[in-house]
Amino acid sequence: MADSNTIRLRVFSLNCWGIRYLSKHCRERYAMIGELLSREEHDIVLLQEVWSEKDFLCLKRKLSSTHPHSHYFKSGVIGSGMATFSRHRIHDAFLYRYSLNGYPYMAHHGDWFGGKAVGMVILNIGRLAAHVYVTHLHAEYCREKDSYLPHRVVQAWELQQFIRHTSSGADLVILAGDLNLHPQDLGNRLLRTYTGLRDSYTETAKFDGCEDGITLIADNPFINPKELCPFEKGIRIDYILYKGSGRVSIQCESLSTTKGSVPDHPFPYSDHEALSADLQLQTLTQQAGGDETRGEQDCAAGKLAELVDIVTEARTEVKVGLYCAERMRYTAARTGVMGMALLLLELAIAAVPWLALRADQPFPRASFYLLGVLCFAILITTFLLYIFYTMEVKALQGAEDQMRLAVGSLQERLRGFPLAQPLNRLSAVESVED
Amino acid sequence: MADSNTIRLRVFSLNCWGIRYLSKHCRERYAMIGELLSREEHDIVLLQEVWSEKDFLCLKRKLSSTHPHSHYFKSGVIGSGMATFSRHRIHDAFLYRYSLNGYPYMAHHGDWFGGKAVGMVILNIGRLAAHVYVTHLHAEYCREKDSYLPHRVVQAWELQQFIRHTSSGADLVILAGDLNLHPQDLGNRLLRTYTGLRDSYTETAKFDGCEDGITLIADNPFINPKELCPFEKGIRIDYILYKGSGRVSIQCESLSTTKGSVPDHPFPYSDHEALSADLQLQTLTQQAGGDETRGEQDCAAGKLAELVDIVTEARTEVKVGLYCAERMRYTAARTGVMGMALLLLELAIAAVPWLALRADQPFPRASFYLLGVLCFAILITTFLLYIFYTMEVKALQGAEDQMRLAVGSLQERLRGFPLAQPLNRLSAVESVED
Repeated sequence: MADSNTIRLRVFSLNCWGIRYLSKHCRERYAMIGELLSREEHDIVLLQEVWSEKDFLCLKRKLSSTHPHSHYFKSGVIGSGMATFSRHRIHDAFLYRYSLNGYPYMAHHGDWFGGKAVGMVILNIGRLAAHVYVTHLHAEYCREKDSYLPHRVVQAWELQQFIRHTSSGADLVILAGDLNLHPQDLGNRLLRTYTGLRDSYTETAKFDGCEDGITLIADNPFINPKELCPFEKGIRIDYILYKGSGRVSIQCESLSTTKGSVPDHPFPYSDHEALSADLQLQTLTQQAGGDETRGEQDCAAGKLAELVDIVTEARTEVKVGLYCAERMRYTAARTGVMGMALLLLELAIAAVPWLALRADQPFPRASFYLLGVLCFAILITTFLLYIFYTMEVKALQGAEDQMRLAVGSLQERLRGFPLAQPLNRLSAVESVED
Repeated sequence: MADSNTIRLRVFSLNCWGIRYLSKHCRERYAMIGELLSREEHDIVLLQEVWSEKDFLCLKRKLSSTHPHSHYFKSGVIGSGMATFSRHRIHDAFLYRYSLNGYPYMAHHGDWFGGKAVGMVILNIGRLAAHVYVTHLHAEYCREKDSYLPHRVVQAWELQQFIRHTSSGADLVILAGDLNLHPQDLGNRLLRTYTGLRDSYTETAKFDGCEDGITLIADNPFINPKELCPFEKGIRIDYILYKGSGRVSIQCESLSTTKGSVPDHPFPYSDHEALSADLQLQTLTQQAGGDETRGEQDCAAGKLAELVDIVTEARTEVKVGLYCAERMRYTAARTGVMGMALLLLELAIAAVPWLALRADQPFPRASFYLLGVLCFAILITTFLLYIFYTMEVKALQGAEDQMRLAVGSLQERLRGFPLAQPLNRLSAVESVED
């Protein structure tokens, strides 16, 4: 492998839908996934929604000969659900927990408890340093009225920040996972344009899979097609993205997805389809620069302008979220004040006959206690909500501040402001000032 | 500046103790800090405990001519309290929130509400990319029986991870802040040895400040000397750390600290002393390699072995924390079960006469309701605590997994396992395999 200039790298990604006792045929599906992985021997396997560590350990045992290296990322209450298996040694692992991830009281959606995050492992492939990322963003439950949109935009923002800042020394970068973003969604554009990551589906030379590369398909028996409406056939929300560097150029030779059913098995691997990408790495002589860099020099200014537009759009979305969060916090505060007023009123009603030394209370004792309990419950709940919304407001404000800073910095560059080093952080517009 | 090979960089750090209405002379002290900063014109100012954004904005206005660039990091409920002012343009900002940071019910300690984090800003100094970090770790309230030690060790672990992984492309790295760690504390050794950051106090050519560089001194009127016991004079917990790269070598020309009192003012700037470091940057010709790299080649194996020991020590500390968190979670679960049993018992007592169609209850109505409320309160509290402790357990397990992986990787390298690229991530042991 080290002798040749070309290295083949096979990457696999699947959202396993592995909620023990709740997901249908969970155990059987894990057995099928284990079989598939040990048979196919991908170089890198990136799984999401492996909610139980026991299932991870079970897979780890099964894959001990084909994938001796693995890492399970832990986060939140039951998460992060992300696991990676590798044929190449993992040298380092790092986890970034998103600052926003839904609401704990939306327990039926469960995202908050999953502690969504982006995990990074650093592997050596031959003499190349590969930074491999796996993530799972907040689900979209209603596209028309998506109350989680600001959270997902902030997650996409933090994802691109994390990848940009931690991949400076990487020879190649791979990101896979369930982004819960359609190909042209704001978060997706933000991620791809800012990091320069390329989508294996649009870049592949050969594709074998569902129409339009969809990974959540109506034909999947675990899916209620009504939930996909208005996308009758399905949606594409799972991705394998990649980029090379000055030392390596990457081509996606082929990409395949499962198609809802598995031969000789009564049901598919998961409610999502699995992705499998064959990447070809071409090591370049130092300082040569990849084709992708040279080819993109001309449109660097265009890319910058596009980025300014996208970040501005994201900022607007975050501002909408900020407005909502502030309104919710205000509502919590107002309800808390009303609870407090009711409690004081009740205490006053109780105090008047007591001060007048009358033994009998003006209203029934049971109602009196119940009302007291209600007031306390309101006070505690609104207090907790107020704390939670304050944290949400802070996180949204923080993201908005960072976006404002980024837009300012990008605009300075557009104006030809003399900048040096940090430009190489923006891989899509590399070497603009050379 | 760009013509010369030598650049002078002045860095300032101060924990401002800026809790509005609670910290003594808060407003006056901010005015003094603002005066100091606009007079001294440091290149980079890194502040901690600026808890109110209003105070940040006030400082920003005051420093608009001397420090036109600034960023305020937001996190948690009232935090993160970290602010940076710069004479050089800030291009990018990124925040990493520590996964563990005390307990919300320890409200009198307040750390949880502060949302402790590490903030990074990227600046251009001439043609050099400076990655500047500011942080504030969890306070130590009792050194003998420090229940927050595992949290602080995990914070130090995440801090070194964040710096290592985000500084690959940096020409120089600066970290300043209130680490709440003594110079030889585990977290401090972990941070310095893993990142290769150098302590300006031990490295400086000239020092002007308190004895032993202490930054929390008994002479400070805002400090109760008893709290410093057994360190009669004080402790050193605030730092300015730095490192260069293959492109830049850094020397600390001088370091000074305030000494508890300020001429012409009745009280000091804060309960902490301020640090001010004069760094001299020497740009090197490409590929030359800094003296620090060459000089350390011989002891690379020794450094690796030291690092293995330190990470192993940290892992032990995290395991102790894990044991405590699991015990606390078990206690919460057991108390919850007892609350539930009590509630069921009460309902049974209430149900018996009701089923027997008797109108009178066997025990007083008031006690009955109060007991019910108590049971509910126990159930809700233990449920919330259970969720919280589960998150703590997950975070500790995650850190321990990462440490295990790191020790394995370091030991492989010690055994001379053939590794390539990722070694350059370990700056202190750079070029060991060249």
